[in-house]
Amino acid sequence: MYKNIKVIAFDADDTLWVNEPYFREVEHEFARLLSSFETENKINQELFKMEIDNLELYGYGIKGFMLSMIESAIELSNHKISNETISKIINLGKEMLEKPIELLDGVEEVLKYLSVEYKLIVATKGDLLDQERKLKKSGLIKYFDHIEVLSDKKVSNYKRLIDFLEIEPSEFLMIGNSLKSDILPLIKIGAQVIHVPFHTTWEHEKVEVHSSEESFETLDSLTEVLALL
Amino acid sequence: MYKNIKVIAFDADDTLWVNEPYFREVEHEFARLLSSFETENKINQELFKMEIDNLELYGYGIKGFMLSMIESAIELSNHKISNETISKIINLGKEMLEKPIELLDGVEEVLKYLSVEYKLIVATKGDLLDQERKLKKSGLIKYFDHIEVLSDKKVSNYKRLIDFLEIEPSEFLMIGNSLKSDILPLIKIGAQVIHVPFHTTWEHEKVEVHSSEESFETLDSLTEVLALL
Repeated sequence: MYKNIKVIAFDADDTLWVNEPYFREVEHEFARLLSSFETENKINQELFKMEIDNLELYGYGIKGFMLSMIESAIELSNHKISNETISKIINLGKEMLEKPIELLDGVEEVLKYLSVEYKLIVATKGDLLDQERKLKKSGLIKYFDHIEVLSDKKVSNYKRLIDFLEIEPSEFLMIGNSLKSDILPLIKIGAQVIHVPFHTTWEHEKVEVHSSEESFETLDSLTEVLALL
Repeated sequence: MYKNIKVIAFDADDTLWVNEPYFREVEHEFARLLSSFETENKINQELFKMEIDNLELYGYGIKGFMLSMIESAIELSNHKISNETISKIINLGKEMLEKPIELLDGVEEVLKYLSVEYKLIVATKGDLLDQERKLKKSGLIKYFDHIEVLSDKKVSNYKRLIDFLEIEPSEFLMIGNSLKSDILPLIKIGAQVIHVPFHTTWEHEKVEVHSSEESFETLDSLTEVLALL
């Protein structure tokens, strides 16, 4: 099934290392800080709404998340949030930026094996500095020929990337955890895909998959990739 | 003097379009919002210090600047800043992100002319989404073969970029306004440079230039580039 592959691109967050659970933890802590004003459920809803409202302006990443938390805290508290709580929110974000990297099972083994035969790249979205920092901390940089941080993962972003690699879409294999960002846009342009879901998915990344689009492999863990290639 | 050039890279902020004066305006507005707590001079100093302290964590760009303003406001007011003022600070940042692009004199003419004979790229640092958005708004994208947003502009960043372009450093010409970011690291690696200073420079970008390093052209305006190439 998988053949003529020239470049294998890996998503990073929740494909190579743990990411989304850290956001869930901080959201929970944020709700705790605001618990005298609203229920956790209401706080989560309003924060998510704020993030989506700000997404076009801020893009993906922790700094935009921090700014949306501060703006939400002011709204949810009806302008009564204390300076101390805002400082705590800023510190929650700074701790996220400084978190050590927790690689997912089998990642190093898979990259080591595949890098012998294929050109491997990282195709991730988010904040440029933060993604570069995580790659450095991960110790995985040596397996990759190129790191591409995209401002978004839409068809147009992938087309530009594949053009730049001077290959055909059919020679490009994308491996990632997000149906919306790593799988569906690639199927649209005729690239190859492998879906390795992660147990936690951000609400914004969730999509309905129509049966006509369901022609791709879904694996339980990254190590199963080795049996396919 | 300038020869064998294969790629010309342009810095973006304050080389192609106005940027730094918007930060000065917002700093002034920020000092006005905090004027009941401190003098403008003290506020500017503390904000600058906060930005530098946060630079490694946040990197360059408006979102980090917004977070540093909020953190400074809390400190400078001794935890007495109002929610209304924090909201105003967030809005100042959002307005910066939405500002229209103001091209510098002669930019379009120079790019149009040079793009016939040379491969042109943009090499800018800062926030990925924000720089992409500015390039789109500028209408200049059609002149460039490639856009490279760097997390920093040090020797190692430029080496990686030139490697990736598959040329020699001596075949690379960088044109920009910042001695520290656009000129000195390039001289170190044997690339060609043209310095086009801008009237406003961020304190952090200011450097002393030693006489031994002074062997580069400094122009009054970008249009003078045409006479050199």
